[in-house]
Amino acid sequence: MIEKNSKFLIIGLGLIGGSYALNLKEKGHTVYAIDISKKTLAYALNNKIIDQGSSNLTDFINKVDYIILAVYPHLVLDYLSKIATKAKNNLIITDVTGIKEAIVDKAEKILPDNTEFIASHPMAGKAVGSIFNASLNLFKDANFIITPTTNSSPEAITFLKDLATTLGFAKTTQLMPKMHDRMIAYTSQLTHAIAVSLINVTPSEEIFKYSGDSFKDLTRIAEINEVLWSELFLNNKNNLVEQIDTFIDELTDLRNIINDCQKDKLSQKLINSTILKRKFNDLKKKD
Amino acid sequence: MIEKNSKFLIIGLGLIGGSYALNLKEKGHTVYAIDISKKTLAYALNNKIIDQGSSNLTDFINKVDYIILAVYPHLVLDYLSKIATKAKNNLIITDVTGIKEAIVDKAEKILPDNTEFIASHPMAGKAVGSIFNASLNLFKDANFIITPTTNSSPEAITFLKDLATTLGFAKTTQLMPKMHDRMIAYTSQLTHAIAVSLINVTPSEEIFKYSGDSFKDLTRIAEINEVLWSELFLNNKNNLVEQIDTFIDELTDLRNIINDCQKDKLSQKLINSTILKRKFNDLKKKD
Repeated sequence: MIEKNSKFLIIGLGLIGGSYALNLKEKGHTVYAIDISKKTLAYALNNKIIDQGSSNLTDFINKVDYIILAVYPHLVLDYLSKIATKAKNNLIITDVTGIKEAIVDKAEKILPDNTEFIASHPMAGKAVGSIFNASLNLFKDANFIITPTTNSSPEAITFLKDLATTLGFAKTTQLMPKMHDRMIAYTSQLTHAIAVSLINVTPSEEIFKYSGDSFKDLTRIAEINEVLWSELFLNNKNNLVEQIDTFIDELTDLRNIINDCQKDKLSQKLINSTILKRKFNDLKKKD
Repeated sequence: MIEKNSKFLIIGLGLIGGSYALNLKEKGHTVYAIDISKKTLAYALNNKIIDQGSSNLTDFINKVDYIILAVYPHLVLDYLSKIATKAKNNLIITDVTGIKEAIVDKAEKILPDNTEFIASHPMAGKAVGSIFNASLNLFKDANFIITPTTNSSPEAITFLKDLATTLGFAKTTQLMPKMHDRMIAYTSQLTHAIAVSLINVTPSEEIFKYSGDSFKDLTRIAEINEVLWSELFLNNKNNLVEQIDTFIDELTDLRNIINDCQKDKLSQKLINSTILKRKFNDLKKKD
């Protein structure tokens, strides 16, 4: 496990950074935080979510064992450049972003030999972000994905496994960054693109009154942070466009089968989805 | 309210018919049932879900005040023809199917003057049907839609409102059959077509391991009764195909915006979906 009373620096106290802080403090670690918002820092201090906070990046870097970059994807490399020359020996840095390939290669090149960056993806969130929604239970039942490269040390991988346990994740998996981005294009980004498009074509808001659970479930994630998700979509463009195209082909096929009243083919599509969904359910039960 | 100890005949003891029976018995009404399966009838009798059951349609028709046709859409008109000449005066008949236009016009023409058919749609269900999954709470939080025509009597509409209350529905709304079918093509049938197509394009079942809540939510309804849903899709073909086409156009637009890295347009799509989703949430809260 992570050594008792380790010192963490969390850069970016949003929903994810704040929920990391809460869990790390709860387990007895020391948590420093950097955020550009004085209001966020004051709230975090008043509510004992962190030990100390600052808007000045250089205040804590040389004091800590671990740094969590809990910022938007485009800021990760910026912060790594600023950290690069100032860190203690053997510092381990991780992030929380939902795309990996665009970051990982460059990140490793920025850092000196005594500092290691290893990426990870906490698969959790809420429609509404910010420290005010941070919670100890945010990661219960959720999946933590470690995305090591061939340069990652066993120590860093072990640290992330222990971090996932400390934060309360139900499960930890490992994927290479390239595979992670292909996977996430399907399981997460395509689903968000679908939910957004589904609610955007509503014939009238009046129709919401008549909807049932299926519409509610399929649009849950249509309330979305447009800054974050624009970055995630655009930084994984090729994979996402490929997944959208494949999905549109399949839905067009189903549309044509319905339009041509091909009963057997229609039935086969529904049987196939039922088989896959049951496999999904079985796999999730085993977790 | 519906008169005490009224006599109901439920034709078809599946998930919906069985859950109607449970609630009607609980409120002190007499429930007869017709089902082709002896096993289903025996289970329903042993568990006091019904008072009497039979596989022979003519056994109860002339004894009852109300008939619920809880069968697949293609059977509704068949059963109405068989009932037509044998019913008591002032009998009211309703159904439970998810499409209305294909049934309602023909239904009214089949029946004699002393018998009224008024359609309704209980918007509830489970991935797995049958009497064995019937439950008293199935309709809690759900929407009951009455679809009257210009021929429907005020008495029949009042009966359906009271029936919805008796069954425990959270809310009752009214729509003309044509509007119902257009609405349901969007809120329910399009969502099922999307969920089925989404899981059918999975790159590998291995990928399920790495998925989070968004994929789980968007595929919840991908486990689907292929006989029932083939009928629902094909009986509402024109409306559904129109909705699928509109959705595909919108998703294609989003795909092109991502492919061309048009940041402002992408952001606008996500802001728009967030606004609509919040309106949806507000409306559901008020219910």
